[in-house]
Amino acid sequence: MKIGIVGGTGDIGEGMAMRLSPIFEVIVGSREAEKAEQTCRMGLEIQKKRGIDCSLTGVSNQAAIDDADIVILAIPFKHLAGTLETLHGFEGKTVISPVNPMEKRDFFITVPPEDGSAALMIKRLLPSDAKICTAFNTIAANKWKALDEELAYSVPVCGDDASAKHEVMGIVNKVSKLHAFDAGPLAASSLVESLTPLLLNIARYNKMHDVGIQFH
Amino acid sequence: MKIGIVGGTGDIGEGMAMRLSPIFEVIVGSREAEKAEQTCRMGLEIQKKRGIDCSLTGVSNQAAIDDADIVILAIPFKHLAGTLETLHGFEGKTVISPVNPMEKRDFFITVPPEDGSAALMIKRLLPSDAKICTAFNTIAANKWKALDEELAYSVPVCGDDASAKHEVMGIVNKVSKLHAFDAGPLAASSLVESLTPLLLNIARYNKMHDVGIQFH
Repeated sequence: MKIGIVGGTGDIGEGMAMRLSPIFEVIVGSREAEKAEQTCRMGLEIQKKRGIDCSLTGVSNQAAIDDADIVILAIPFKHLAGTLETLHGFEGKTVISPVNPMEKRDFFITVPPEDGSAALMIKRLLPSDAKICTAFNTIAANKWKALDEELAYSVPVCGDDASAKHEVMGIVNKVSKLHAFDAGPLAASSLVESLTPLLLNIARYNKMHDVGIQFH
Repeated sequence: MKIGIVGGTGDIGEGMAMRLSPIFEVIVGSREAEKAEQTCRMGLEIQKKRGIDCSLTGVSNQAAIDDADIVILAIPFKHLAGTLETLHGFEGKTVISPVNPMEKRDFFITVPPEDGSAALMIKRLLPSDAKICTAFNTIAANKWKALDEELAYSVPVCGDDASAKHEVMGIVNKVSKLHAFDAGPLAASSLVESLTPLLLNIARYNKMHDVGIQFH
């Protein structure tokens, strides 16, 4: 299975690529293909030293979409609409949104778009047969990157296409100790997108780092 | 320390009273004092059979406020404003809101009031020197009532008065294995109030019961 990561050289995207590439064929996209190639070269070296085989290819964001079966939009919310405008080829693809529309004021808070959530905004901006799923929203960049640490967290997954959601939950469950939970239709994504600002507040006010979540 | 529970004969309030009364002096309030008295008689019997001493007194909602140092508003969101209109005497008291403004449509979703959260609505409706804190939002009624089960959950607590928040976190940490986390100012409560509909969706779509949450 080929997973394309749009924004794959960003903080979160890079960590995702490192964690996913020993399991799946990962295509790292960036606005500049060269930057993606460089990220992948470095990533392959790091994994080689750890004795781990992986599949990492750096290309442009557009090529990452074109070559992939599943696309992850690892883009900060503020760049989401602008980036999607420049890209095409999402028809029929499964698209994963880990995007959280939030702001840091005195504390972190969700600032959802008029659609109600980043996920619903993506649904509006992409072709109607793209299968959008919310996933990976609460895994901090530092956690993705700490390759020797287990990710023992719960991951709520929303989506309207049952088989795409099932597929995404399968991907989640293959990464470290992540545990996927079906969190309902895409319209319930606003609840998932509210978790990360809460976790950031908890980290800040309790002097913790990179707080994660478990459901049980 | 005297804790008054407004709505203490409701589903959640009753379970809270059972869990809190072995630790604190609990005053159960109800629209009908007689109903509160009956609930407390039954509660005392149940605890006696378990060999547990507790302090449970049933009174009217108003008397529960008047006699208590700390007041818990165990009221469903839809009755919150109407109930608060009929009550007074909150001046200077610490007031705990476990209230979640949510609706069940095809799935559960938050439907916050114009204030942004139930907590901020309570702040507007009560005297300005009442010290509102959000707490206990995600503990399901069935969990409160299952007295022989441990409550091994995280409890985010929001509030603007530092000493009241500290006091509320202390109360949370004395109940079973609950673990309080400072989740920031009262204005961050909307993030906390979004958790319960998410947990209800997860329970529903994964065929689970009374899902709880842990931060770590």
